[in-house]
Amino acid sequence: MRVSTPEAATPTIEWVDNSIHLIDQTRLPGEFAIINARRVPVLVDAIKTLAVRGAPAIGVAGAYGVALAAREYPPDTKRAEFDEAVASIRSARPTAVNLAKRVDEVLAAIEISVESAADSSLGAAHQIRAEELASSIAMGEKGAYLVLDLCDGGPVTTMTICNTGGLATVERGTALAVIQRLHELGHLAEALPVETRPLLQGGRLTTWELHRMGAPFRLLVDSAGPFLLSRKAADVVLIGADRIAANGDTANKIGSFSLALGARHAGVPFIVVAPESTIDMDTPTGADIEIEDRGPEEVITAMGTPIAEPNTPAVNPAFDVTPASLITAIVTERRVIRLDQGEALELIDSLDPNDIL
Amino acid sequence: MRVSTPEAATPTIEWVDNSIHLIDQTRLPGEFAIINARRVPVLVDAIKTLAVRGAPAIGVAGAYGVALAAREYPPDTKRAEFDEAVASIRSARPTAVNLAKRVDEVLAAIEISVESAADSSLGAAHQIRAEELASSIAMGEKGAYLVLDLCDGGPVTTMTICNTGGLATVERGTALAVIQRLHELGHLAEALPVETRPLLQGGRLTTWELHRMGAPFRLLVDSAGPFLLSRKAADVVLIGADRIAANGDTANKIGSFSLALGARHAGVPFIVVAPESTIDMDTPTGADIEIEDRGPEEVITAMGTPIAEPNTPAVNPAFDVTPASLITAIVTERRVIRLDQGEALELIDSLDPNDIL
Repeated sequence: MRVSTPEAATPTIEWVDNSIHLIDQTRLPGEFAIINARRVPVLVDAIKTLAVRGAPAIGVAGAYGVALAAREYPPDTKRAEFDEAVASIRSARPTAVNLAKRVDEVLAAIEISVESAADSSLGAAHQIRAEELASSIAMGEKGAYLVLDLCDGGPVTTMTICNTGGLATVERGTALAVIQRLHELGHLAEALPVETRPLLQGGRLTTWELHRMGAPFRLLVDSAGPFLLSRKAADVVLIGADRIAANGDTANKIGSFSLALGARHAGVPFIVVAPESTIDMDTPTGADIEIEDRGPEEVITAMGTPIAEPNTPAVNPAFDVTPASLITAIVTERRVIRLDQGEALELIDSLDPNDIL
Repeated sequence: MRVSTPEAATPTIEWVDNSIHLIDQTRLPGEFAIINARRVPVLVDAIKTLAVRGAPAIGVAGAYGVALAAREYPPDTKRAEFDEAVASIRSARPTAVNLAKRVDEVLAAIEISVESAADSSLGAAHQIRAEELASSIAMGEKGAYLVLDLCDGGPVTTMTICNTGGLATVERGTALAVIQRLHELGHLAEALPVETRPLLQGGRLTTWELHRMGAPFRLLVDSAGPFLLSRKAADVVLIGADRIAANGDTANKIGSFSLALGARHAGVPFIVVAPESTIDMDTPTGADIEIEDRGPEEVITAMGTPIAEPNTPAVNPAFDVTPASLITAIVTERRVIRLDQGEALELIDSLDPNDIL
């Protein structure tokens, strides 16, 4: 069931009146629509069709999905149906590790007292959502003050790639959370998102989020980024991360490396903003990260429109690797790692695990 | 009048049976059609609608246009009509300096003997076309041997941007002429054209030309270029030029600078291929080149399809400037200038002006 609700403050995912409300990202930016999932199959469909996307957002959606299942099939009386519903959620996006992880966290909460599964599952899902939101707030706060520190107090013009905002998380996001915080603090001169070919998440989603938060911005094609940096058009580059290797090398959306080269050439800080869960100490360096080629179809079309002859061969690396040597700092929900000052990722072990902000 | 002629060897511009045949570039890659201009207004329309594009190609088309005019309105008897027709050609693309220059060259040939204007104008136009073709052949030859010299004899994988091929000239082109020559010599492993947002000349036109010449190639999005260079996916980057400043700084299609940064980071040669007429000794450095912003419309659409909300603000620099320090060599129809070895552009004065190859 879809409800058109063009409300500026609508969160990406919200539990409302015993159902999950999700912004339908497949319809943005042309249309703002809310998917109202009262039953598990509607949620599973939303995950499968990418109506909800981004690892944190998918995880939260899956957690609430278990709460939906516990309402329809109380596990103390309808265990088989409940298990089947949960399995359908978990397998909705097989590669999204975060989805299975969050589903399991809610299941663990249910097992403590199966009779009160409806309440305990919802409580656990609410807690996961709150954790993700707190994480975004913390990244935004730490990142904003780092940027102001590096840029003489602002106002700053920021360049960014892909969509790293509230649409990919619960609210606020990672790199875009920093930009939003700078805007709230009155220190954002302008945001410069690059369109992010081939799938155009910057053009389609980030511009929509910036417009929604009332931030000043202008869109540019990806290849204009490094040149505009060389002409001092931006003070800092902020990106998210898919995976951060133990040495700080960072895999992120294709085009990130190009902006890092531009930032270094222009003498502009280049900052990675990502949760601690993105850091993979089992991957020594970026050279150990395999680059997925997503095939020619995305390259030879744009929003479904052909831009080359059918069957044109193409290379389509989904992401690239920016070497740690080009990264000024990595900002997580718990810390700022100044790679430019020789700091290393291993330091996390000495931190208080409860210290988020 | 349009004639569908899917012949592989059809040149961009050709004088056939008292008319000008032009490949209609507005229909590529979807359709291969020839515009048959027997009268001046058809040619003027082709220039205005960008059915023919690229400075050398427009110049040659204009030269043949004067020959058309001299046939319809012999200037010894119908001077007023002739002058009016020529004026309409000259003003078809006001910013194309080359168009007025080539029209004037043909007019000068006519003035020598107005009675034989039909013959002398056609002779002058043929000569201009031959000069452009010789220039492309010379650039291709010099460039190919430079590349082989720099890349241990090949086979080489080349990366390139925009359309610098026969569609922009008469045949063969500038940077793409080098790639074609490498292919003819059996030394091209693969060509990697980037799509070249916002107008996608790489995706639409260069892939079409590479397919037509039978060269192996794969298309990529612009921002994948620097990353693929870092993974040693190409041996050399070849670009054209809009303008080359006296110090070697080169203005070219947006995205060229980004590839230059990628090439430098990867230790790969970066070569500019352009005719001598592109060198502007009155522009001291790239900083003196004003960057035209072509407005948001091209950025917020792709092949006419919206990629962001209407009225999304955008920055749209039409070209960028690659500093001479990132350029290995400049190849013209007359010489190879090894900027990486400290050679300078002024050297041209010591060359024999008749020495093309």
